[in-house]
Amino acid sequence: MEAADTLITGGRVVTMDEKDTIHGNGAVAVAQGKIVAVGPAEEIQKRFSARRTIRADHRIVMPGLINAHTHAAMTCFRGFADDMELMTWWKEYIFPAETRAVSPELAYWGTTLACAEMIRSGTTCFCDMYFFTEETAQAAKRAGMRCLIGEVLLDFPSANAKSPAAGLEYTRKLIEKWSGDPLVRIAVEPHALYTCSEDVLKESRQLARRYDVPVATHFLENQAEVGQLTEKYGKKAIHYLRDIGFLHENLILFHGVCMDDEDMRICADYGCKVVHNPESNMKLASGVAPVGKMLARGITVALGTDGCASNNNLDMFQEMDTAAKLAKVAALDPTILPASSVLRMATRNGARAMGLARETGALEEGMQADIILIDTRKPHLTPLYNDYSHLVYAVSGADVETVMIDGRVVMEAGRLLTIDEEEAMARVNEIAGRVRGILS
Amino acid sequence: MEAADTLITGGRVVTMDEKDTIHGNGAVAVAQGKIVAVGPAEEIQKRFSARRTIRADHRIVMPGLINAHTHAAMTCFRGFADDMELMTWWKEYIFPAETRAVSPELAYWGTTLACAEMIRSGTTCFCDMYFFTEETAQAAKRAGMRCLIGEVLLDFPSANAKSPAAGLEYTRKLIEKWSGDPLVRIAVEPHALYTCSEDVLKESRQLARRYDVPVATHFLENQAEVGQLTEKYGKKAIHYLRDIGFLHENLILFHGVCMDDEDMRICADYGCKVVHNPESNMKLASGVAPVGKMLARGITVALGTDGCASNNNLDMFQEMDTAAKLAKVAALDPTILPASSVLRMATRNGARAMGLARETGALEEGMQADIILIDTRKPHLTPLYNDYSHLVYAVSGADVETVMIDGRVVMEAGRLLTIDEEEAMARVNEIAGRVRGILS
Repeated sequence: MEAADTLITGGRVVTMDEKDTIHGNGAVAVAQGKIVAVGPAEEIQKRFSARRTIRADHRIVMPGLINAHTHAAMTCFRGFADDMELMTWWKEYIFPAETRAVSPELAYWGTTLACAEMIRSGTTCFCDMYFFTEETAQAAKRAGMRCLIGEVLLDFPSANAKSPAAGLEYTRKLIEKWSGDPLVRIAVEPHALYTCSEDVLKESRQLARRYDVPVATHFLENQAEVGQLTEKYGKKAIHYLRDIGFLHENLILFHGVCMDDEDMRICADYGCKVVHNPESNMKLASGVAPVGKMLARGITVALGTDGCASNNNLDMFQEMDTAAKLAKVAALDPTILPASSVLRMATRNGARAMGLARETGALEEGMQADIILIDTRKPHLTPLYNDYSHLVYAVSGADVETVMIDGRVVMEAGRLLTIDEEEAMARVNEIAGRVRGILS
Repeated sequence: MEAADTLITGGRVVTMDEKDTIHGNGAVAVAQGKIVAVGPAEEIQKRFSARRTIRADHRIVMPGLINAHTHAAMTCFRGFADDMELMTWWKEYIFPAETRAVSPELAYWGTTLACAEMIRSGTTCFCDMYFFTEETAQAAKRAGMRCLIGEVLLDFPSANAKSPAAGLEYTRKLIEKWSGDPLVRIAVEPHALYTCSEDVLKESRQLARRYDVPVATHFLENQAEVGQLTEKYGKKAIHYLRDIGFLHENLILFHGVCMDDEDMRICADYGCKVVHNPESNMKLASGVAPVGKMLARGITVALGTDGCASNNNLDMFQEMDTAAKLAKVAALDPTILPASSVLRMATRNGARAMGLARETGALEEGMQADIILIDTRKPHLTPLYNDYSHLVYAVSGADVETVMIDGRVVMEAGRLLTIDEEEAMARVNEIAGRVRGILS
C-alpha cells in the first residue's frame, strides 16, 4: 500500500476538475501537503494507508474557496459607514478613518480576524490589497492561509509609504523577502487609474515583470470613474492601458463593472483577469458587471467579497448565491450563470486569476491540499438533489466544518486551530474603539 | 416586585418599536406569553422577579423575523430544478412533481422541516400558501410557530381539492376549526389572477369578509404575467381587481414586481399590503420590485423568501441583505432602503401585512413574546458599530442562538426543543427519493 498523511473518505467529493467530476462516495489522499489521489472511496482506501483518516459521511468534500478581492484588515471598519452616497462614505468616513487609524497593528489584527472569518466560511486562499502588507503577510502565514497580497500604491502619501517610490520599494523588498514561501505571494498593486499617475502604473508593470509577479488594480468600478478617466486620458481607459503596455495576462482587474464590449474584447485578447464583487457593487450602487458576457468571451472571471466596509462580511458562499442571482435578474434570463459556473468562478477561476492554477482551486492529483468539508445533515440542506445548486443556493459559510490548507488542518469540526479568536476579537474591538474616537 | 415568567437581560435590545428604540444594556420581561416590560436592564431587573433568567450578554435581543411569503412544504423540492427557463422549470419539473408527489405527508413533513430551518434562522412567524393546509397547520402548531396560512385555490383540480368550490369549502372549515388558536390563523388564498376565474376571486373575497380573515394572492410577478392579464381582462389587472371589489386593506399581494406608479397609487389608496421576495425574483429572473417607491407611497411592504424551489433556503437574514443591496443597485443609489428600513420590512411590516400588528413584529409591552437572541461574539460580527447594519449586512441565520415564540422557548443555545430534526430530515429524504423516481 502507498503511504499518505491523511485520507478524507466517505463523502460526496465535488472535485471542480476540468470534467466537473463528482464522486458520490469518494475519497482524497493527501501526502506532504499535496493531493496524491482523488477517486471512489473504495479504490482510494484499498490503495493508501494513512496516518490519519477523516470520515466525511454526509459531507461534501470540495476545494477551498478563493476570495479573489479583499481588503482583509478592513474588518476593523465593518459596519462603520453604510447606506450613504459613495463620496460621503469615502470622504467623511473611510478616508479620514484610514488616514488616522491605519497602523501595522490594525493591519495585523484586522487581517487575523479576517482569516478567522474566511477559514470559518470555507475560504482557503485570498487576494488582498491594503496598507502594511508585511503585517498582512505575517497574519496570513500564522493563520495558515494561502494568499496573493500587495501594498496599495497611490500618488499621495499613505499611512505606510510617504511617496509612490517608497511604496514601490517596500513592494520590491516584500517580493524578495517572501520569495519561495509556500503560502504567501506578493503582487504589485497600484490602487486604481484615478489614484495613480502614469509613472506609478509603468513602474508597477516594470517591477512586476522583473520579478514575474502579478499586477492587480481596481478598474471601472462605476460610471463616474469611466467618465473621469476618459476625461483624464482623452481616450478610453482600456486604450490608455494598452498604449502604455500595461495589459498582460498576469494583470488582475478588480470589479470591471462598467466594461463595454470593446473593453471585454481587448481584455480577452491580452488574457487579463477580472474579479467580480457583486455584493459590494450592489451595496455601493456601482452597477452590475457583465459577467455572463465576460465568461462567454473567454475571460477568466473570479469572485471576491471586497472589504468589510462595503459588504459587510467575507462569506464566499453568500457571494456565490448573490452572483448567480444578480446575473439572472440583470439579464432577465434564469439560465445565465448556472450554479456550476459560479462555483468555478469561486474556485478554479480564482486560482487562475492569481497565477495559482497548478496549486489550488480543484481537487486533483498534484495540487496542494486546500480542502473543505461541509456537513449536509441540516434542515436547510435537506434534501440534496444537486450538489452545485446546494453549494451556491443553500449552503452558507457557517456550514463549513473542517478546513485543510496546504495539507494542514486549520479548522476541525468548527474549532479553529491556528488563530486565537478571542484575542483577535479583543484586539479589533480595541482598534474599533479608537476608530469611533477619531470621528466623534 | 412584579412576577414574570422569563427575564431576558444584559443584551443589546433592538426593539423595532415606532421610535426605533435600542437599549444598549437592556432587558425584556415575559409573562403568560406576553411581553410585560422592555427597558434598561437595571430598571427591569429591579422591577421584576422571574422564574427564569436568560443572560443575553454579548447578544442582540430582537423581535423574531416574519417570513411573509413561503410555500413551506416545498423544502421537499429544494434544489430540484434550478437555472432554467421559468416555463421549463414549471412545466417539466415543479408542476408534474407537485401533481404526483404532493400528499398530506409531504405537506406535514415538508412544513416541519421548514419550521426547523425557520426557527434555526430566527423566523418566528410565516405566511404560507400550499396544498393540504390542515397538515401545514398541524406541523406549525407542533413546532410552536406563529403563522397565517391558506389552501391554494385554483381553477383546476389540485392534489387536495377536486374543484375551486371544494377548495373554498376546505378553507371555510379550516377557518372555523382554527378560530381562536393563539398561533395558527387561516387566510383565503386564491393562487393568482392567471390561475383563478372571476368566480373564484369573488368567492374568496366573500368568504374572507364573512369571517374577517385576510386574502392573499400572487400578483404581477413578471412582465409576461402583466401582458397575459391585460389581454385576459382587456384592462390593467389592478383596474380589474378594483372593479370586482377585490382590493381592500386585508389583501396581501405577493411579489408585485411589475407594479407601475398607478398600480402603487391604487394599492396605497386601498391599503393593500405587498410582500417583496428579492431572492426568488432574482433567481427566476422575474425583475426588481420598486420597493423604495412602494414604501415612499406609504404601502406596507413585508419581506419573504418564497418557497425552496426558487430561493433555495428560508434564511430571512440573507433575504434582508439581498433586499437592501438589490434596491441600491437597481436604483444606482446607495442610500435607498437603508438597513433599518429593511429590518422593519422583516419585522413590523410583516406583522402589519398579516394583520398581526398588535401581536408581533416588535418588542413592546403588550405584544406576544416572539423574541430571538443573536450571539455577536464571532469573528464575522466583530466589531459592532451599528446594530442595524450588523443585522442586515453581516449576521446570517446561523448566528441565531435562542428563539422564543409566544413566550415559549423553542430553540435554546442552538438546540431545537419542539422538532425532532432527525426524523423530519429522514422523512423528507424519503419523500425526495420518490420525487426523484417520478421524473426519472
